[in-house]
Amino acid sequence: MSKSDIPYKIYLEENEIPTTWYNVRADMKEKPAPLLNPGTLEPLKFEEMQPIFCDELIKQELDDDTRDVPIPDQIQDFYRMYRPSPLIHAEFLEKALDTPAKIFYKFEGSNTSGSHKLNSAIAQAYYAKQQGLKGVTTETGAGQWGTALSMACAFFDIDCKVFMVKVSYEQKPFRREVMRTYGAEVTSSPSMDTEIGRKINAENPGTTGSLGCAISEAVEVAVKSEGYRYVLGSVLNQVLLHQSVIGIETKTACDKYGIKPDIIIGSAGGGSNLGGLISPFMGEKLRGEADYRIIAVEPASCPSFTRGKFAYDFADLGMVCPMAKMYTLGHGFIPSANHAGGLRYHGMSAILSQLYHDGLMEAVAVEQTSVFDAATLFARTEGILPAPESGHAIRAAIDEALKCKESGEEKIIIFGLTGTGYFDMKAYEQYNDKTMTDHIPTDEELAKGLAGIPEVNR
Amino acid sequence: MSKSDIPYKIYLEENEIPTTWYNVRADMKEKPAPLLNPGTLEPLKFEEMQPIFCDELIKQELDDDTRDVPIPDQIQDFYRMYRPSPLIHAEFLEKALDTPAKIFYKFEGSNTSGSHKLNSAIAQAYYAKQQGLKGVTTETGAGQWGTALSMACAFFDIDCKVFMVKVSYEQKPFRREVMRTYGAEVTSSPSMDTEIGRKINAENPGTTGSLGCAISEAVEVAVKSEGYRYVLGSVLNQVLLHQSVIGIETKTACDKYGIKPDIIIGSAGGGSNLGGLISPFMGEKLRGEADYRIIAVEPASCPSFTRGKFAYDFADLGMVCPMAKMYTLGHGFIPSANHAGGLRYHGMSAILSQLYHDGLMEAVAVEQTSVFDAATLFARTEGILPAPESGHAIRAAIDEALKCKESGEEKIIIFGLTGTGYFDMKAYEQYNDKTMTDHIPTDEELAKGLAGIPEVNR
Repeated sequence: MSKSDIPYKIYLEENEIPTTWYNVRADMKEKPAPLLNPGTLEPLKFEEMQPIFCDELIKQELDDDTRDVPIPDQIQDFYRMYRPSPLIHAEFLEKALDTPAKIFYKFEGSNTSGSHKLNSAIAQAYYAKQQGLKGVTTETGAGQWGTALSMACAFFDIDCKVFMVKVSYEQKPFRREVMRTYGAEVTSSPSMDTEIGRKINAENPGTTGSLGCAISEAVEVAVKSEGYRYVLGSVLNQVLLHQSVIGIETKTACDKYGIKPDIIIGSAGGGSNLGGLISPFMGEKLRGEADYRIIAVEPASCPSFTRGKFAYDFADLGMVCPMAKMYTLGHGFIPSANHAGGLRYHGMSAILSQLYHDGLMEAVAVEQTSVFDAATLFARTEGILPAPESGHAIRAAIDEALKCKESGEEKIIIFGLTGTGYFDMKAYEQYNDKTMTDHIPTDEELAKGLAGIPEVNR
Repeated sequence: MSKSDIPYKIYLEENEIPTTWYNVRADMKEKPAPLLNPGTLEPLKFEEMQPIFCDELIKQELDDDTRDVPIPDQIQDFYRMYRPSPLIHAEFLEKALDTPAKIFYKFEGSNTSGSHKLNSAIAQAYYAKQQGLKGVTTETGAGQWGTALSMACAFFDIDCKVFMVKVSYEQKPFRREVMRTYGAEVTSSPSMDTEIGRKINAENPGTTGSLGCAISEAVEVAVKSEGYRYVLGSVLNQVLLHQSVIGIETKTACDKYGIKPDIIIGSAGGGSNLGGLISPFMGEKLRGEADYRIIAVEPASCPSFTRGKFAYDFADLGMVCPMAKMYTLGHGFIPSANHAGGLRYHGMSAILSQLYHDGLMEAVAVEQTSVFDAATLFARTEGILPAPESGHAIRAAIDEALKCKESGEEKIIIFGLTGTGYFDMKAYEQYNDKTMTDHIPTDEELAKGLAGIPEVNR
């Protein structure tokens, strides 16, 4: 690979945007464990999921076999609005680090939702529209998923009801306003509009909310409202399927320019970006065609991979959702109040959990001030102000590049830059004011959440 | 032009990024009037400008003759970070309007500063660095210019002191935080740190500030501090020179795909984006090689082209800057408090003023609720949430496209989408809440500002 051959920003042609999604499950020998009905503890059937999810999305959720799933034309049309996303050679960051490593990042933030979430939002809105639904409900934490879904629903002209975790609702009024501009109805969670919301408010006065709680509220409204279904922006198999566009484009760009990555790094909350980014590379690894180091990066204050348990657990606080086998800190886990940087979900994608369990990928946990150190250096050198979530991957990429500096190795590192931080300036303000703190939960602090994981013998 | 030949988003190759700026003054028969020394009323000499501006930038300011100015390598390097910017075919907007017109927009907002301002910021920071200066001072209104300059100064590791108009400083704390993340020092204007700031505060208790006032403060600090110069993000000839990259790329893309625009539309505050966008097209028009309708769009509440006077006036409220001949509402003019949408400068680029005076372009004024109507429709159809400033051009482009619907004409319209509105959600909130109002100043209201324009007989 010679530098001069590779443009600073690799933009594929429009006809190189994927026309199929890649389903990594088709290549997994050990399939992810099925979702369970929490009542019967039996694998959930299509019919049981119908009150909650859109029909076509359930099919995608359950399909472990189809490898390449055609992307409907109207979704491809929408993808053309903001895809292909660039694979950028981080020349200026490399120079600042004085590393022989070559660093590339796949930048998913140059759309109005500010993140990769749009890739799945548009697919989910499309299938809801196809099914003749009135609208969808969802939750949002940092706000990226809610924004993405609002945009997607505006495009297909269906309703969008968003339960926004209270702490974000209050800290990010402008995120809320973007959603409203796209026509969404945004409610602070826990709210007094749902049974579960009223219950959580009563039991935890002054709670700032959690994703698990907002999920419960959104599901309740979907199930109780005629013509609505619930949609989710991460964790689920279907989401990783849609997000595979990230990895397919990345791999196409690598192949086109002869870039052979040694290490692939992604931030991991529920796993949507990481899962999408690594899918085709993991496919090669699973088929024995190539090998890569794949690293999931999570917050030290919400360490589901590195300190969680691989077990069946509830996806939400209200226990209204199916159970999934995953690395989890317990469905009651809520990160400490000083945690600013997103990636706050208690569990992890079942697909990624299985892959991690099988030793096919690594995981590291990083502390938030070190994440903002990395994010700020990145902003100043590469000119893009990253989302705190994305900062986790940057941190790990920098750490690997610095190891290369020590060893003199010219490794090729690719990481996912999931989005921009324009709506996260409250957290940057804390960092700039030096009032940001770290929190690594003690074993005792984690014990309560872990103790809430049910015993399921399967 | 057949639709199938043209990609939805036209990305030029990296080697098609301009290597020279285009100086439209070289092709103007009637040159813009020179800047005057307010004391002597004689054209300002190089030496007189040196205490305020960087040497090389003064040369560019005064040079009416050199047509193509080479772009230094380090600036080209930086341009590669976020350029070429895409020229996007507004297919989805066309469909929503049901118009036979073809609409394209040059999108300058996909960089962290959120606007085209970076094109000139990086040039100005470069020349300050080359001159061995410690840093630069400036003002910012909506915040885009300040953000852009902060990024540019971080890249070249020089100081950046920003006076931010008080109303924006308070309404946009997150803009301020982005600048701080890039290492800038941000002060609310009018401040108590400068003589002129203290004077304005004393004379106008509770003032929310103005660009003219912030300029005065920034100039004062630059002149009084060793190793600092003042830089400005709009209005000046040098800025239009740097911004010509927008127009050159647009023209290259048009030529490459056989797009022959009938109408070119840009929002106009000080004229930086409009001037840059139209430069090479105006050049053809001046040389008699082609004809285009060129339309400047300004807020009805700050109507310098459509209701101002073509006369010498001060560039700033404190009258410390040189005088420029331009369309002006008077240097004391401050838009009414309900004006939310940027483009609030009392004057206009001398180049554009001369071109308008000579009948080479048109101007329209639009009201802010109609701007937000257009911006919201655009956001929902094209997926990009525009800056309110950019909304002005969108409004005019939609109006022209709707005229085409009436007449059945397939005109080709290009407009400049200067930036994104992520930091302007306060204004969108007003619009979403239907509390936004319009204000067209009466002749009496304008009279006070106009009366303050000095009599200069030249």
